[in-house]
Amino acid sequence: MKYLKILLVCVPLSFLGVLFHWSASIMFVLTCISIVPLAGYLGNATEEIAAYTGPKFGGFLNATFGNATELIITFFAIRAGLFDVVKASLAGSVLGNILLVLGCSILFGGLKHKELKYDAQLGTFTATMLLFAVFGLAIPAVFTSNVPENLISSKYESFSVITSVILLCIYVIGMIYSFRSQKDLYGVEHAEDIDSKWSLPVSIFVLGVATVLIAILSELLVDSIEPMTQAAGIPEMFVGIILIPIVGNAAEHSTAVIMALKNKMDIAIEIAVGSSLQISLFVIPVAVLISLFFTPMSIIFKPIELFLFGSSVLIANQVVKAGRTNWMEGLKLISVYIIAAVGFFIVG
Amino acid sequence: MKYLKILLVCVPLSFLGVLFHWSASIMFVLTCISIVPLAGYLGNATEEIAAYTGPKFGGFLNATFGNATELIITFFAIRAGLFDVVKASLAGSVLGNILLVLGCSILFGGLKHKELKYDAQLGTFTATMLLFAVFGLAIPAVFTSNVPENLISSKYESFSVITSVILLCIYVIGMIYSFRSQKDLYGVEHAEDIDSKWSLPVSIFVLGVATVLIAILSELLVDSIEPMTQAAGIPEMFVGIILIPIVGNAAEHSTAVIMALKNKMDIAIEIAVGSSLQISLFVIPVAVLISLFFTPMSIIFKPIELFLFGSSVLIANQVVKAGRTNWMEGLKLISVYIIAAVGFFIVG
Amino acid sequence: MKYLKILLVCVPLSFLGVLFHWSASIMFVLTCISIVPLAGYLGNATEEIAAYTGPKFGGFLNATFGNATELIITFFAIRAGLFDVVKASLAGSVLGNILLVLGCSILFGGLKHKELKYDAQLGTFTATMLLFAVFGLAIPAVFTSNVPENLISSKYESFSVITSVILLCIYVIGMIYSFRSQKDLYGVEHAEDIDSKWSLPVSIFVLGVATVLIAILSELLVDSIEPMTQAAGIPEMFVGIILIPIVGNAAEHSTAVIMALKNKMDIAIEIAVGSSLQISLFVIPVAVLISLFFTPMSIIFKPIELFLFGSSVLIANQVVKAGRTNWMEGLKLISVYIIAAVGFFIVG
Repeated sequence: MKYLKILLVCVPLSFLGVLFHWSASIMFVLTCISIVPLAGYLGNATEEIAAYTGPKFGGFLNATFGNATELIITFFAIRAGLFDVVKASLAGSVLGNILLVLGCSILFGGLKHKELKYDAQLGTFTATMLLFAVFGLAIPAVFTSNVPENLISSKYESFSVITSVILLCIYVIGMIYSFRSQKDLYGVEHAEDIDSKWSLPVSIFVLGVATVLIAILSELLVDSIEPMTQAAGIPEMFVGIILIPIVGNAAEHSTAVIMALKNKMDIAIEIAVGSSLQISLFVIPVAVLISLFFTPMSIIFKPIELFLFGSSVLIANQVVKAGRTNWMEGLKLISVYIIAAVGFFIVG
Repeated sequence: MKYLKILLVCVPLSFLGVLFHWSASIMFVLTCISIVPLAGYLGNATEEIAAYTGPKFGGFLNATFGNATELIITFFAIRAGLFDVVKASLAGSVLGNILLVLGCSILFGGLKHKELKYDAQLGTFTATMLLFAVFGLAIPAVFTSNVPENLISSKYESFSVITSVILLCIYVIGMIYSFRSQKDLYGVEHAEDIDSKWSLPVSIFVLGVATVLIAILSELLVDSIEPMTQAAGIPEMFVGIILIPIVGNAAEHSTAVIMALKNKMDIAIEIAVGSSLQISLFVIPVAVLISLFFTPMSIIFKPIELFLFGSSVLIANQVVKAGRTNWMEGLKLISVYIIAAVGFFIVG
Repeated sequence: MKYLKILLVCVPLSFLGVLFHWSASIMFVLTCISIVPLAGYLGNATEEIAAYTGPKFGGFLNATFGNATELIITFFAIRAGLFDVVKASLAGSVLGNILLVLGCSILFGGLKHKELKYDAQLGTFTATMLLFAVFGLAIPAVFTSNVPENLISSKYESFSVITSVILLCIYVIGMIYSFRSQKDLYGVEHAEDIDSKWSLPVSIFVLGVATVLIAILSELLVDSIEPMTQAAGIPEMFVGIILIPIVGNAAEHSTAVIMALKNKMDIAIEIAVGSSLQISLFVIPVAVLISLFFTPMSIIFKPIELFLFGSSVLIANQVVKAGRTNWMEGLKLISVYIIAAVGFFIVG
């Protein structure tokens, strides 16, 4: 977190950029970098407040605001009608969490500690839940694979909405189940490990300021995407699935790797898998429902997105169940991520 | 079973309907409801006879007539040339057994007993067999995914026939293996738990009457499908994959849930997975071979059918191997089923 | 190995065939049969030399020349521009190793020893690696599934090259990891079990002669494929995916079955899975890179190839993790192979 603070300098620079009409590419880079430390503060503030409100409401706070940054960026991208970017960034967030965040955790943790061990049972429930999420998201896509795209959003709109509601129900019921059975379903209880000792008013103030700044910067970021991709010749899909998720996940990323370096692989896995679960069962359905206020967005993902989604989940299942891993496994996860990234860059 | 008896009143009503030319929708509902208790009697009678003939021939009886209702409906649907309905109802039977029957068993059993435990090793062999069945059924579909539909049934007829024969051989050899090694491969030995104490002649009489009635009602049911779907505006696929399998599986369904409520999860899993296996390796290949006497039907399933088939099997594998489960898992299985059902209703 | 020696008589016959211009079908059969014993000698010579050079360099030798025959045939097929045959034969080699070689090992071993047991942990690492290889190979295909074929090889050439380099890096790093951690990653240490006691000079001599003969015969084999498929009416895909891999894998096949008959299932699994891994992570990427010297070949496999590839790997994973198996499982593996072979023969 300490090193991330320096990046805050990009926040005022972003506002300067608006005044002086800097180019879209520069604005894209500046807003991206600005959001990284703010997302970190937002996450910390949420965890601080959660610590004050007690485990029950705190768990709810963490489960809901844990991916607030993704949710804010998603909101502005939906409002701008950039549906492909929205879905790509959400799919990319799951990919990034499992392949890149988990991969780096295993690689660096494994290089330091040789063999990493963890409770194989712990993550099984979460990993199974992730498998269900993939099937839930894939079914609408397989159904409409032969349907022309314009029909999907008009005639089959209700299918997307119903699926979203069902996924959201499962998320909420799972959260209640998690509180009752004292099982940590969504990996939200790693708060105790990162204590920064803020008072409650300070925490709420930080939460408010970070949220407002992220909202403003997200709007600038979203506005810069289209002109930037055209100017720099970078495919929009690459921006959506690779670049934006890195911004949203940077905070989780650094925490997970730090935990892995401390040989606390359980927490690193919880962060990566739990965060993916929140995206799949909470952010994605909410995004579909939010879009109803603007132009309805379907829950249909592209085949490549679903394939990578499914592959990541199968790999996460393997790793979680094994109970032990080593740096070689981390390298393989990262390699799959790199192959996918190259694909999005070249094929688009 | 007690409550199902009341439904028998629909049998005479169905015959009245024929006399007075009631509408297709009413006939569809009446014949569907009529078959449910009859399928229950057919199953009970088979198990009674099996108990008299000793384990070897009894196992054979159960494995062969265990899905007699599905087989009879399938026969009349093939004769009527309703291939899409036939395949949908067979795929739907597997889906229904795994997602709905197993899901409800886990949900209700889990709500009563909190955590359900069972022998993780027990079902592994059956679950692996199911995985092979899926691959066996999927290969022809993947091969012919780019082939126009009319070519599949003419030029590649032999492919469907050979695949069916191979699947059937595996089923028969598996049955022999099961008898020899005293392992219960197809989950057919839950007979002892449902003893209704009929004498052998009574059992044979019940078997005969139930079979004849199911045959007549199945023909009426099949005849009502097309006019009903047109009149009521319900997609044919929805009728095939959701409604008809519920009729055929109702008996298994109630038995499995009752067993789960008694905390006998092993038997509930055996019923659901074993029944899916009989459909995949016995009823489907036999249906393809029967069709040769009328118009040849290919073994090619639709992508969405195979996707749901494969997903269900992967989920069943997960559940079976875990050795313990809870109501939340049941709810997830049911949710996947509901999303699929909504899809078939809206997209068709 | 003893019985294979007799097949050497086809080597001079093949040369006679060239002189007297025998038909392509006869030449295809003769060269295929000739290569089988030569591949066996090549493999033995490699293992002999590996035994002399010590474990480290020996492991490298085995890992690199273990699939020398496949590599040589691939080289000549690439030079002849038969890309479909090349990819089919490499995909077919993986299929053959897992479904046919492993299937026969389990079937024959299981018929002799009833239940086969082995260390479930042993092959997990290799099986996971195979899962990664499948995802690595599938990603480029899913990306370009909507791209016209001529664009793939021109515009997206770099994607294939980068993917190949990444897979190759993982293979090499995995090899180094394997040496360091003393874990046998690629199943190359079954040398001690097949000792034929050659001196080092004899081994090198055998290696040289076998390589040269295989090279010459491979060129003759490749030249005969196209005229043979046209004359005999056999689909080129069937030749590529079923017939050629049997030639290349014959030696591994016999060794694996012999080991299984000796109840050394661990070694049989290592041969089948390790060999598949070498094909996926070494031979396929090298083939793509070699093609750059002639006409660039993409790393894009056909959907049916990838589906069978993925299915085999999932099945191998199941078998490896179970820790015990029986002949029935072997029969199921072989059945899936037969269904696939029938498909390639009928649909092509």
